Amino acid sequence: MIDHLVVIGVGLIGGSFALDLKKKGLVGRITGVGRGRANLEKARELGIIDAIAEHAGEAVADADLVMIAIPVGAMAALFRDIAPTVPPHCILTDAGSTKQDVIAVARAGLGEKIARFVPGHPIAGAETSGAEAARSGLFQRKPCILTPLPENRPQDVEAVQALWKACGAQVTNMEPMQHDKVYAAVSHLPHLVAFALMDELAGRPNAETYFLHAGSGFRDSTRIAGSHPEMWRDIALANKDALVVELDAFIDKLANIREWVAAGDGAALEDLFSRAREARQHWIKGK
Amino acid sequence: MIDHLVVIGVGLIGGSFALDLKKKGLVGRITGVGRGRANLEKARELGIIDAIAEHAGEAVADADLVMIAIPVGAMAALFRDIAPTVPPHCILTDAGSTKQDVIAVARAGLGEKIARFVPGHPIAGAETSGAEAARSGLFQRKPCILTPLPENRPQDVEAVQALWKACGAQVTNMEPMQHDKVYAAVSHLPHLVAFALMDELAGRPNAETYFLHAGSGFRDSTRIAGSHPEMWRDIALANKDALVVELDAFIDKLANIREWVAAGDGAALEDLFSRAREARQHWIKGK
Repeated sequence: MIDHLVVIGVGLIGGSFALDLKKKGLVGRITGVGRGRANLEKARELGIIDAIAEHAGEAVADADLVMIAIPVGAMAALFRDIAPTVPPHCILTDAGSTKQDVIAVARAGLGEKIARFVPGHPIAGAETSGAEAARSGLFQRKPCILTPLPENRPQDVEAVQALWKACGAQVTNMEPMQHDKVYAAVSHLPHLVAFALMDELAGRPNAETYFLHAGSGFRDSTRIAGSHPEMWRDIALANKDALVVELDAFIDKLANIREWVAAGDGAALEDLFSRAREARQHWIKGK
Repeated sequence: MIDHLVVIGVGLIGGSFALDLKKKGLVGRITGVGRGRANLEKARELGIIDAIAEHAGEAVADADLVMIAIPVGAMAALFRDIAPTVPPHCILTDAGSTKQDVIAVARAGLGEKIARFVPGHPIAGAETSGAEAARSGLFQRKPCILTPLPENRPQDVEAVQALWKACGAQVTNMEPMQHDKVYAAVSHLPHLVAFALMDELAGRPNAETYFLHAGSGFRDSTRIAGSHPEMWRDIALANKDALVVELDAFIDKLANIREWVAAGDGAALEDLFSRAREARQHWIKGK
């Protein structure tokens, strides 16, 4: 039982986390902190939070658990803000999509209090954002990765695990570097690809004609291009090294395909399409 | 009312077309033709077709309407096969995803009978294929493009339009070249991108680790990588010129993004992501 939960960033992820824990009776009261006053008021209206705090540093002073669910680029300043006032018993955790950089800024900002920070990443993004997008059940059967630090106390890691499990998430642990490499490939690259597909057409003088004829394939391929621009800017920059490796590999692959199309090499294309289809069917079946 | 409908290629599209027309009482009997005997028997078992014909040339001899729904690469031979036996009153139409090349092989194969061929393209692909994937209602509220020829009689074009409308499709006419340019961008490129995203991970030694962590974003981004490899090989080759233009533009766009990520240019990334998101929201709202 958490007497006082402070959610910093009451959007899709932070808000849904709060709703789930409240529903399960695992929290006493919830304070929300964030940049957007209107969003926080909406969150209070929707029953996601009980109170609004102006300053993160004040809000955490009597917190038992702090969930940090803001764009990763805003986390360095946040850790600096809250470091002086976080009480010794309070556990900190986050929902950032990249882990090495978040850990680096947490270390820099929190100093010795880094031991209380258990880094996490729930895989439940959507193309919606803000408190209005939050819903109980969002994390049901979704993966949640924790990347515990050597300094963490086992009972704190277990406490964060238990909360995510209470939200219905499937919790596993990973090394931060491995996490960032894997998510560069399975999440960050596909987001950039979706944004690029969308922007390529949107920038054309006759964009309307293209969109008029786009069907369900284009719709699904670009679903995640509806994601939050600032959040994804931060993720792209935070995971720069792994993402550049993925972009290079993907551009190479498309350049090969381009050569096969230009040369009329149907066999090479069919081979690739068949491998891709088979891999996808295998993956979907296993899910 | 069509006394005798011949469907060449009883898969997702051809089969669903047959089911819809049968349900509406617009056809007398339906004969299926195709390469796969097992698929045709399944189609008959499912009530999609009434009879199976071994040879397309024989089947069309007493047809009133012929729907050609086979991979576009197989159409040249098909038009040659049926040209001698197509009766003068019979209307031919197709469901190929590219139009300029289909029209070219139709002209070459059909000779003077080209006037009876009304080219079409229903936009209702899915990642499933074969007679078992066919279902009544597939075309409901889906676009269907016709690219009529100068030789077509207006009443034949209207007849084909009426059949697609009876299936619930939203029928519009386009120039064949415009069709191929637009669909290279909104459909063919996204398919190649999805196949490439999938194949890139599938080819890695630790592919299992990646797929284990792939979530709903990756799932939707790669849905169309479950599409039929041979069909998409043919489309890529048939629409080569327009597709190479699209691939070049898209590779350029990704190369820009790669430079912005590498250089840490958050403003450029956020601009692109914001434009993409806004365009997508605008598009979805209009649908």
